[in-house]
Amino acid sequence: MIGDIDAEMRKRGLDALMAIGSSTGLDARSTDLFYLAGAHLPRGGVYVMARDREAILVVSNLDVGNAKKGRVRDIRTYDDYGFLQLIKRHGREKAAVMLYDKILKRERIRGRVAILGQGDLSRAIGLVDRLRSLGHSVQGQQPPTLLDEIRATKDERELEAIRQTGEKAQRVVKHVWKLLSDCVVRHGRLIFEGRELTVGRVKEEIRLACARQNLVEIGETMFAVGPVSADPHAAGEPDTPVKPNKPIVFDFFPQYAGGYCFDVTRTFVIGGPPAEVRKMHQSVLDAQLLALDRLKAGEGAEEAMNAICDLFEGNGYRTIRDLMRGIRSAQFSGFIHSLGHGVGLTVGEAPYLGLASREILKTGHVVTVEPGLYKPGLGGVRIEDVVVIKEGGVENLTWLPKDLEI
Amino acid sequence: MIGDIDAEMRKRGLDALMAIGSSTGLDARSTDLFYLAGAHLPRGGVYVMARDREAILVVSNLDVGNAKKGRVRDIRTYDDYGFLQLIKRHGREKAAVMLYDKILKRERIRGRVAILGQGDLSRAIGLVDRLRSLGHSVQGQQPPTLLDEIRATKDERELEAIRQTGEKAQRVVKHVWKLLSDCVVRHGRLIFEGRELTVGRVKEEIRLACARQNLVEIGETMFAVGPVSADPHAAGEPDTPVKPNKPIVFDFFPQYAGGYCFDVTRTFVIGGPPAEVRKMHQSVLDAQLLALDRLKAGEGAEEAMNAICDLFEGNGYRTIRDLMRGIRSAQFSGFIHSLGHGVGLTVGEAPYLGLASREILKTGHVVTVEPGLYKPGLGGVRIEDVVVIKEGGVENLTWLPKDLEI
Repeated sequence: MIGDIDAEMRKRGLDALMAIGSSTGLDARSTDLFYLAGAHLPRGGVYVMARDREAILVVSNLDVGNAKKGRVRDIRTYDDYGFLQLIKRHGREKAAVMLYDKILKRERIRGRVAILGQGDLSRAIGLVDRLRSLGHSVQGQQPPTLLDEIRATKDERELEAIRQTGEKAQRVVKHVWKLLSDCVVRHGRLIFEGRELTVGRVKEEIRLACARQNLVEIGETMFAVGPVSADPHAAGEPDTPVKPNKPIVFDFFPQYAGGYCFDVTRTFVIGGPPAEVRKMHQSVLDAQLLALDRLKAGEGAEEAMNAICDLFEGNGYRTIRDLMRGIRSAQFSGFIHSLGHGVGLTVGEAPYLGLASREILKTGHVVTVEPGLYKPGLGGVRIEDVVVIKEGGVENLTWLPKDLEI
Repeated sequence: MIGDIDAEMRKRGLDALMAIGSSTGLDARSTDLFYLAGAHLPRGGVYVMARDREAILVVSNLDVGNAKKGRVRDIRTYDDYGFLQLIKRHGREKAAVMLYDKILKRERIRGRVAILGQGDLSRAIGLVDRLRSLGHSVQGQQPPTLLDEIRATKDERELEAIRQTGEKAQRVVKHVWKLLSDCVVRHGRLIFEGRELTVGRVKEEIRLACARQNLVEIGETMFAVGPVSADPHAAGEPDTPVKPNKPIVFDFFPQYAGGYCFDVTRTFVIGGPPAEVRKMHQSVLDAQLLALDRLKAGEGAEEAMNAICDLFEGNGYRTIRDLMRGIRSAQFSGFIHSLGHGVGLTVGEAPYLGLASREILKTGHVVTVEPGLYKPGLGGVRIEDVVVIKEGGVENLTWLPKDLEI
């Protein structure tokens, strides 16, 4: 949580932070800067905070109004540092370095300064080299970075935002189910509005439903029908017909208006499923219920992942542990990904629930719980909820049914 | 253009490139990696190219299929470098550094390696420090970076993609105009579907129109009504009623399905405009026509910007040049931004047509031409087209009318 920032800085021996980033628009590309500033800055900005002191935020004239909606009280503009004159005199490239130098000096920032933010890597590395040559002790961090840690535990306001996105996201999934149930099956084809239903038509409906709710798809929604669903990241091709009696993996991960995200997967079959898919579904459901049951504050992410691998291996499936043991077929068959990951301003952040994870779950972590099984030639089954980690267990933000059959 | 890459590397004394990035999904966050790989890599990747040699691309198992759709022939996976074993033995953080080290060594990359890509700055700086300590001469760049230059000139395939996005974007603008013309004015209010039309309702309609065409709004669409339009970056508040007889600045900059962008602005008034707005509109239109007429390959971006400032100052308006002369009122009144910027995988890239710009326009540059005038208390006028720079002039990709009155 953002309130832990001074303590986390002390733990890491950091004297100051500087978050930079090109833009925190609707797309929230620089999520660190958005998180720290608490505001959308379409032209980016520079956030500087010395440990145990108030932060300052330097933005373009044009973004002062946006910046004021955020959590930083001391807002300044590039003009306050004579940026235009610097550009005029020294050109844009030199002027940028001089601006950062001025900001750090005027705030009397000494000691170790962590650079945070998302943006252009080449520019940032070039900038850091130049600031170092001017005597600033600026530095990057190996993951988990300070903000990875801080951002992983969500406060009440953030949880409420994730819940809201979750409600909207689940309404979209229900809307798609309704559409699928309204189809008629004719000669093995699914007919909608007089035509065979395609993945492209379903995705158009998803986009329209998102538009109505102000949700943004931050990656391509996965709607994988039949054998292609054996690839956990198959998004589905637009021209593919939606077929009955085939597993359909529907993985949906939208963001609400530049804010917090949600991530939900359901697998279903229209009409009766093949026996093997039914068996896989039962095993995935058992695994998910086990995970939902045992995850809580204090639990090790790796242990949870191992428990799920135990269950799947006990049911006769390969897991990613087999791949680590050198069994190459485990690359494509069985439980071939991690149990989950954090969700917040992104859908891929700390904590990660995987075999290489050394993280201990904490109250306020928000994670996906998404076991899956995949079989080349047949397809995949994945069930994914988003939960909040609490003292004695989890709060599940996902209420969608997990039935296999539509 | 991508074909210029070896020459540009030689010019800059670079022996190799390494582009990294977390994801090039639908949101195309790592545009450098997307540009070089020519493919969407939802889990990111590592692109390495030694000068005058074929590039290699290292991706997750799960993204091999995506990678193959792109332009790199030599595709490898993290597993080919024993990444899972490295993680198991050394933990994820060390393993990542060892992976990059292995990739560079196996490709016999020596000499100066430019790091490119977009992503987490803190991680990238930490990674670069560690690679340097292992003897690699990796480096960032001051803007314009190598890829800023390369990406600025578009090839035929890219131009076609921008044209396509432009067609779709302009259809959305026309759709909004139609909606506005269908409104009736009653007691000074604009009535649509039996209710007073709001900015929020217009934006919902824009989102729906985008969803139908598979366009993504990559920032908040601006629909600024009345005095707030005096702020060139006002997006408009959802509850604001759309009023007749007020200037409306509608700035729309979508991306087509994770690919190329467009950027168009029109200013209009429903019903008769105030005399002063009409005067501003005429001046902005004159300025835009002048710019469209003089821009061509060989023209200096700064000269073009100065010519437009001359015109506006001759018409009695302040410009950003006055701000540089120390006239503070020029911060909010007159022509207070640049003439334009490049458009491609982003809506803010080289070349920049501003006062500090030292760039010479080249064939294949794609830029916005967007003069504007702003008056606090009254509102703003901006007209923005996207053009391709050619030998003798520009090809305008924008065919929407520029009339002030609806």
